[in-house]
Formats: sequence, C-alpha cells, structure tokens
Amino acid sequence: MILAELELKLFSEKGRNDMKSVTFLGGGSFGTALGILLANKRYEVTIWDRNPAVVEEINNSKTNHKYLADITIPDGVIATNTIEDSIQKSDCIILAVPSYAIRTICGQISKKVSKDQIIVSIAKGIEEETKMRLSKVIKEELPSNPVVILSGPSHAEEVSRNLPTTVVVTSENMEYAYKVQDLFMTNTFRVYTNDDIIGIEIGGAVKNIIALACGICDGLGYGDNTKAALMTRGMSEIVRIGTLLGGRRETFYGLTGMGDLIVTCTSLHSRNRRAGILIGEGVPLNEACQRIGMVVEGVKACEAFYELKGKLNVIMPITDMLYKVLFEDKDVKAAVKELMERDKKDEMY
Amino acid sequence: MILAELELKLFSEKGRNDMKSVTFLGGGSFGTALGILLANKRYEVTIWDRNPAVVEEINNSKTNHKYLADITIPDGVIATNTIEDSIQKSDCIILAVPSYAIRTICGQISKKVSKDQIIVSIAKGIEEETKMRLSKVIKEELPSNPVVILSGPSHAEEVSRNLPTTVVVTSENMEYAYKVQDLFMTNTFRVYTNDDIIGIEIGGAVKNIIALACGICDGLGYGDNTKAALMTRGMSEIVRIGTLLGGRRETFYGLTGMGDLIVTCTSLHSRNRRAGILIGEGVPLNEACQRIGMVVEGVKACEAFYELKGKLNVIMPITDMLYKVLFEDKDVKAAVKELMERDKKDEMY
Repeated sequence: MILAELELKLFSEKGRNDMKSVTFLGGGSFGTALGILLANKRYEVTIWDRNPAVVEEINNSKTNHKYLADITIPDGVIATNTIEDSIQKSDCIILAVPSYAIRTICGQISKKVSKDQIIVSIAKGIEEETKMRLSKVIKEELPSNPVVILSGPSHAEEVSRNLPTTVVVTSENMEYAYKVQDLFMTNTFRVYTNDDIIGIEIGGAVKNIIALACGICDGLGYGDNTKAALMTRGMSEIVRIGTLLGGRRETFYGLTGMGDLIVTCTSLHSRNRRAGILIGEGVPLNEACQRIGMVVEGVKACEAFYELKGKLNVIMPITDMLYKVLFEDKDVKAAVKELMERDKKDEMY
Repeated sequence: MILAELELKLFSEKGRNDMKSVTFLGGGSFGTALGILLANKRYEVTIWDRNPAVVEEINNSKTNHKYLADITIPDGVIATNTIEDSIQKSDCIILAVPSYAIRTICGQISKKVSKDQIIVSIAKGIEEETKMRLSKVIKEELPSNPVVILSGPSHAEEVSRNLPTTVVVTSENMEYAYKVQDLFMTNTFRVYTNDDIIGIEIGGAVKNIIALACGICDGLGYGDNTKAALMTRGMSEIVRIGTLLGGRRETFYGLTGMGDLIVTCTSLHSRNRRAGILIGEGVPLNEACQRIGMVVEGVKACEAFYELKGKLNVIMPITDMLYKVLFEDKDVKAAVKELMERDKKDEMY
C-alpha cells in the first residue's frame, strides 16, 4: 500500500545512540518543547537564544512564557546567550530557528563545530534567494557534518504536554537519522524514518502556503466544506511540485505531507493558519505577521515557490492566488471566488 | 498529476438536463438543504418524510428545525407523507435516507417508478448484510432505472447557507451523471463528475469509520498532532481496502475520499465525529447514538468493513480498534494507546 511502501522504521535495536549532550540553537516553541522532552530523557540540554530575556526566564523562572505558556521547564535544561560555548560539548546541534535564519546560524558556528557533531534541522521552508532545501543550505555552510531533518505534524504546544505525536526523520545518510530517531523517541513522541529527504523537505515547506490560504478561507467566514476542498486541491499542488523536484509521491501522502497539512490547516496552534485568518478578515499582511509575533513561514514559502513554479512551469493555483493577495493587493474575496469557480479547463485538478 | 488524471468535468454544455420536478425521499438535513438549493433554481421540489411532524413543519412553518436550524425553506418546496404521490410527477428521485434504509425505500417505490426516472443516492455506506455498495442495492430493487451517486465534503448546514461546496457525481452510465451535475450546479455548489463509482462509494463509506475514531481521539483529550496522524493512517486504510475492491487510487485522494475525510474528521457538524467524542468521553455507544439523534453511519460501516476486511485479509488497524471499542467493550484508552504504539512490524503503515 501507498504508505506501506514507505521505508518507515520504528527504532527497535539498542545502542544506536550514544549521545549525552544536545544543544538547541533557538529558544522558540518547538525547540523548547523538544528540549524539555530530551531533558526528561536525561540528556544534558542547552538552549542558546539571542534574546537575553528568554535565556534569563528559562534559567531563573523555568518557563518560556511567550512560546510555551504554563509549561515548567525541567532543571536539565540550561539556557545561554553565548553560541560558541553552547555547542562546545554537544553531540548533537538542533537548528531551531526559522528557515530564513538557517544559513546565518550555520555560518556563526561553522568555525566551532567538530565534524562528528550531528546537525538536526526542525525548520520548514526553503531558502528564499537560492530556492535550496534547508539540508542543502546546511551542507554548504557545514560541509563536514552529518545533517538530519525532523518533520511531521507536531505542534510544539502539544508536544510539551506529552500528547501523542508522530514525526519523521530523514538524512542523506540514514545512519544518522537512526541515531536521531533513538534520541527523540518516547512513548508519546513516535519517531519514524524515511529516506526521501527531498519529499520531506518540500512537503513541509509547501504545506505552509496551503495553510495560509485555508486560514484566509476561515477568515472570510467560509465553512468546512470550502476548506476541505481547498486542502484537497492543495495536496495536489504539493504532489505536483514535489514530485517534479524529485520527492516521492508516497511521502507526500504520509505524515510529513498530508499529516502535516491537516494539522496546519485545522489547528489554531498554527501561526500560518492564524495569520491567514487575520488576512481574510482584512488585516494587512505586515500587521497580521506582527500580531502573530512569530515567523509566518508560509509568507516566505509563497514568495519562493511562486518564483520556482514559474521557472518550472508547474500549475499551482492556490499559490498564485495567495501570492496575488499577499504581494499584489489582490482583493482576497475575489481571489477565493475565482479559485473556487475555476472550471476544469483552467485547472480544477 | 494524481488529481489531474481524474475524469472530472465541469458542466459546460447546455441542454443536458430537461428536468422540472424533483422528489426527495427523506427530509433530513442534506435532503432538505439540497431541496432548498433546487427550489431556488426554480425546480418543483417535493420532500417525502415518514414523520408527519416534519412534513407539517416544512409546509406550515417553512422550517425543518431539528435538521437545519434557522433556515427558511422557500415556497417551492412542498412536503408530503404519501410516498406514492410524491414520486408521481418526478423526473428525478433523490434517496435521502440513511444507508440501512436504502433497500426498504427502493422496495416501497419499486412498483410506482417509471424507468425514465433518475434515482440519485446521497447516502454514504454499504449494506451491512450483503456488503454491497448502495448503487448495487438500488439496482437490485429498481433494475430499470438509471442510478447516480452524489458524494463529497458537503455538510448540509453549510450547503443550506450557500457556503462554497464541491461534490462529485458518478454513475455506471455517465450520461445520467452529467444530467445530475447540471441539475445541482450553482456558483457555490460545484458539482464535478468522476466515473469511478466504486472508489466514490467505498471512500464515502470508510471515511465515517475514521471520523468516529478521530472523534474518540478528541473525546480522550488528545490533540491535533494525534488526530492528524490518525487521519493520515486512516487514509491509507481507505486506499488499501478501496483499491482491493476495485476503486482507483486517485479517487481516494480526491474530494470524495481525502476531502470528505478531512471535513468529517475536523468539523463539529459531523455526527460521526460527535458520536466519537462522546464515546471517547466514556458515554456508552447506544447512548452516544441516541444523543446525536441522527443516524451515525460510521457505526454500521465499522461492523460491515470489519467483517469484509477479515474475509479479504486486509490490514485495517483503526477499523479493528474501533470495532473492539464499539462492540467488544475494549477500553478506549488502551485501544488508542495500542494503536499509537504499534511498531512497524505490526503495521505502522
């Protein structure tokens, strides 16, 4: 079966992972949630953040209120402002920054890393200027280090409350993906592996575009019928561009594609969806992003994939519509109406 | 592309439909919503219902409060208690009853129909005893009549409020599907065609099982991450049994499969999901169904497909889990835990 064909392996053997110490670069919601998870597994966890207030709050109050309200951070998590010190003893460095900051942060640590340190990215997007997948960006900056990507339907708020969550890890060298699988695996945080790194990275990036569009639909007061249709068509946009870029169709219908699309389009935890709702309600783009207060990856992804799809000549009507709404002042109601009323000749599928 | 390969045709030619009068057998929510839609398109609409109170309310108060609160029914809709009279002048008879009642209702009208009356079913399920698709059941009872199936992500409440909705019609003779497409098509109710009748009927039936399971997940207090994983796995169950029964994979990833799954698993309009929530909260099955007050198709579908999958030797872990919870008093928390913690060898996908 489609998903049965995936190479998804649950960790079963012991001894794949001899790590002791892990550093998160970025003290946002997902980084902090995963840091808590690892500290509870008795790893030494360091969180570096550039914001001194976040560092102080984690160390002194054992909270990170802006990103994870009402969650107590265990003593095993130490925060720091000094990026060089933070990675010194780490077996594994988790890049927990937005996609646009991945290259910069890698550049900042490139002189300090040793080649046996595993680099894990938990960001979703592609680099705007180069249209490169993030694993490629990391490889350019840190060519000697193994790179692992973690993705899937995993709102940080729910991970921090131990609600059952499934994610997938991938790498160009799966040996390291198995280590990272073992690192994170718990009874409620199930980590699968899949060697389709292209499919996983592209699916994770494009789904944020569809989530923004679905949020707009919600903001306009349309219902669940409309949104389900939009998500179904969105899925076909993901598959269309994703397979052309080299990803496997089955991957897009798995956890990191369809699963992540569903969670992002339906949950109020999603910043992309929440930003879309505001835009649908008539709030200008910049103000919507400001109100969310965290990076809205779908906006960047929309710009990047709008350009890419033009070059590759792929039909992506939702991405088109969103681009025009976000960057060309297209009336949002008219855009959704056009999208819903396209006839088959123009697109439907 | 997956979905581009579908034979999905928007109506473009004129004159495919020369119908004047349409009868709905069953005055539930979807039948009433579609009746309103057709009356607004100036068709003569008759709704037959066995419940005299519903008939009286539609005729006198122009409402159907139990099924569509706050909606005014236009004068073009007439309700009746007499099934024979109701179909006499009809060009098209819409079966708007739950799946278990399809055979009975067809038997009731079999002596009265003329062979040029098109029969449309809007129910989702398979016949429990025979495991037959509903179009087959109808064909057995009304062998001379053309049969069309209408399916897709279309909560009645939203249809009745003109929120943009997309559905698909199918038939063993697509000529009649095009007529029905034309009959229902409006600017906000977009009707597509697809000749994969097996895929459409099976997808519509199995998704109710997954929706019940997702409701249980919600009732247990799990989050969006868990539900997205369950829906992703549920999709693979639909594809697995559906392709084995002769449906096309692309259909399952379209509006009547994935689209309908999404709307059913995430919307509070869904009775299947709402029933699941109650069961997850510890309410016994019978009481949960009673509280919903309308037929919960997923319960019947679960029984039917549990038996069918056994005969066909298909792996359907969510259907198994749900069957045990519904009919074998399995502890619901333990069941979900087992499902989430299955390792790859047992299933994952």
